[in-house]
Amino acid sequence: MGVKQVRASITIAALLVFTGNAAGDDQLSSWNDGPSKQAINEFVAQVSAPGGPNYVPPAERIAVFDNDGTLWAEQPLYFQLIFALDRIKALAPEHPEWKNTQPFKAALENDLNAVLSGSEHALLELIMATHAGITVNEFSTIVNDWLGTARHPTTGRLYTDMVYQPMLELLAYLRANDFKTYITSGGGVEFIRVFAEEVYGIPPEQVIGSSIKTQYAYRDGDPVLIRLPELNFIDDKAGKPVAINHHIGRRPIAAFGNSDGDLQMLQWTCAGDGTRFCLYVRHTDAEREWAYDRESHIGRLDKGIDQAQTDGWTVVDMKSDWAVIFSIEGNGRNDLKL
Amino acid sequence: MGVKQVRASITIAALLVFTGNAAGDDQLSSWNDGPSKQAINEFVAQVSAPGGPNYVPPAERIAVFDNDGTLWAEQPLYFQLIFALDRIKALAPEHPEWKNTQPFKAALENDLNAVLSGSEHALLELIMATHAGITVNEFSTIVNDWLGTARHPTTGRLYTDMVYQPMLELLAYLRANDFKTYITSGGGVEFIRVFAEEVYGIPPEQVIGSSIKTQYAYRDGDPVLIRLPELNFIDDKAGKPVAINHHIGRRPIAAFGNSDGDLQMLQWTCAGDGTRFCLYVRHTDAEREWAYDRESHIGRLDKGIDQAQTDGWTVVDMKSDWAVIFSIEGNGRNDLKL
Repeated sequence: MGVKQVRASITIAALLVFTGNAAGDDQLSSWNDGPSKQAINEFVAQVSAPGGPNYVPPAERIAVFDNDGTLWAEQPLYFQLIFALDRIKALAPEHPEWKNTQPFKAALENDLNAVLSGSEHALLELIMATHAGITVNEFSTIVNDWLGTARHPTTGRLYTDMVYQPMLELLAYLRANDFKTYITSGGGVEFIRVFAEEVYGIPPEQVIGSSIKTQYAYRDGDPVLIRLPELNFIDDKAGKPVAINHHIGRRPIAAFGNSDGDLQMLQWTCAGDGTRFCLYVRHTDAEREWAYDRESHIGRLDKGIDQAQTDGWTVVDMKSDWAVIFSIEGNGRNDLKL
Repeated sequence: MGVKQVRASITIAALLVFTGNAAGDDQLSSWNDGPSKQAINEFVAQVSAPGGPNYVPPAERIAVFDNDGTLWAEQPLYFQLIFALDRIKALAPEHPEWKNTQPFKAALENDLNAVLSGSEHALLELIMATHAGITVNEFSTIVNDWLGTARHPTTGRLYTDMVYQPMLELLAYLRANDFKTYITSGGGVEFIRVFAEEVYGIPPEQVIGSSIKTQYAYRDGDPVLIRLPELNFIDDKAGKPVAINHHIGRRPIAAFGNSDGDLQMLQWTCAGDGTRFCLYVRHTDAEREWAYDRESHIGRLDKGIDQAQTDGWTVVDMKSDWAVIFSIEGNGRNDLKL
């Protein structure tokens, strides 16, 4: 490395440092000015100010994010469930008996109400039939292929184009200030890992989620990990702080969610010592996205909003706080391929 | 930040870069010259050489280390088991019935043979009586206090002074070359996390281990995580690749172990595509440490050594490969407080 190159690297490094410590207004350009944006900026400034009373060392700057409804959309139903239903259709030729067996019959007939009103056991049957019995590598390939081609039923977009631009900016802003950003999702860890690094900049080791069991075995002389039709862990509600502790071993200082399934994660985060930040994304924009909260079957936010008000957590009003919603708008991309 | 400070930071950054890419001989100063040291240096040089045929991007440079017998000693029995026996003695006044109940009676009478020859169920009883029923914070404090005072029965050293200096150098050398170093231990994840960052430079989120279940609950108005007397996961043998996949979501490119309990982890690592590195530490030094392998009850290395020979894995001969054994020697510290 020549002197010029070293100087150039230094300039870039210095820029990164200064950008990281600067107020985040420019980095949160899809956030409208208001109390939510202000609260985020104040929190980041406080924990990042060396020598300040609320300074937190970088190693302890852990931020955890729910995925469905917080980083990407979740209507009309969780995207992973849409994947499962699509997968049922793809596998149907190998299972002629599904035509006359519930819950597969309802899935094949696109009868979402029947699928969703079925028992938890019926939903699990759909998940296991589509998520187990293959290796972890095979599963990743199938999910990757689906994400590259499947389209959302009402927007016609790729599912990975239905991530929220303001949240992408928030993730980047936190990382620029030495935060380590994690996903803590009720969705499947192996499903989310397929796109989390490319779409969110979150590497696989920083994705925590629900899981089924896997088994180590030899196949054709090579070791493989086979996905078994058996639940391992449900990373939802009280499971979230449990999984965070198991996986990270530190209490986060910031937590971001959108539903009652995230409530315990926010409680656990904000009950810690020192400066903490808890934020709920509230779906209030029926025109640009969806509007739902206390009565919704998907992403219900009821008890959470009450505790947010009691405890002074930040509540994002999507309609007024977000200048743009989906990443595809924020990026100025217009290749919708509808 | 003034210009001088920026220049100073730059100099340090440049030094780190150059050190990181330099040949590792100086960084492995406790390793004698020989095939083991040479194999390590060649592997690191190959995967770190930009544009080289075996280059691996930093994000994929994952290295996993067993703990007991690989990073620190494990004789005359696993240190965590010694902790459990000490803890039984500390708790005995609250449990008068233990004087007449096995396996507690044997533990209180220091009858290690009886303890170790008991059933797996009996060992589990000892673990649960000493590791469960308290919060994760309370457990960390107890382990931390024990590590600060308890002494190894034959060396008189603190247990954290019985880590291997050559392995500390190896961890640092890998990290200087942009590896992410993980522990994957059959020992308890919450036990190892108490000292892993200070002693090994490995943060809690990079420690994978066995675990008991925990429960989220409220106590005196605050959320706590309570350790339950119920096994969650045994991170040993075929469990190691399963846990690595669950936690990291990438296959490591380097794995380090010392026993048959690490065999599947090494198989899984070295069966991946591209350049891989698998290493067994063989305990061959009865004078400076212990000598044991195929017949040992603790840290048995039998099938593993056969596969290492078949597959050409590196096998460290502690007696000839390591100039010093314990960190306390390598650091030149002489405050043994025997």
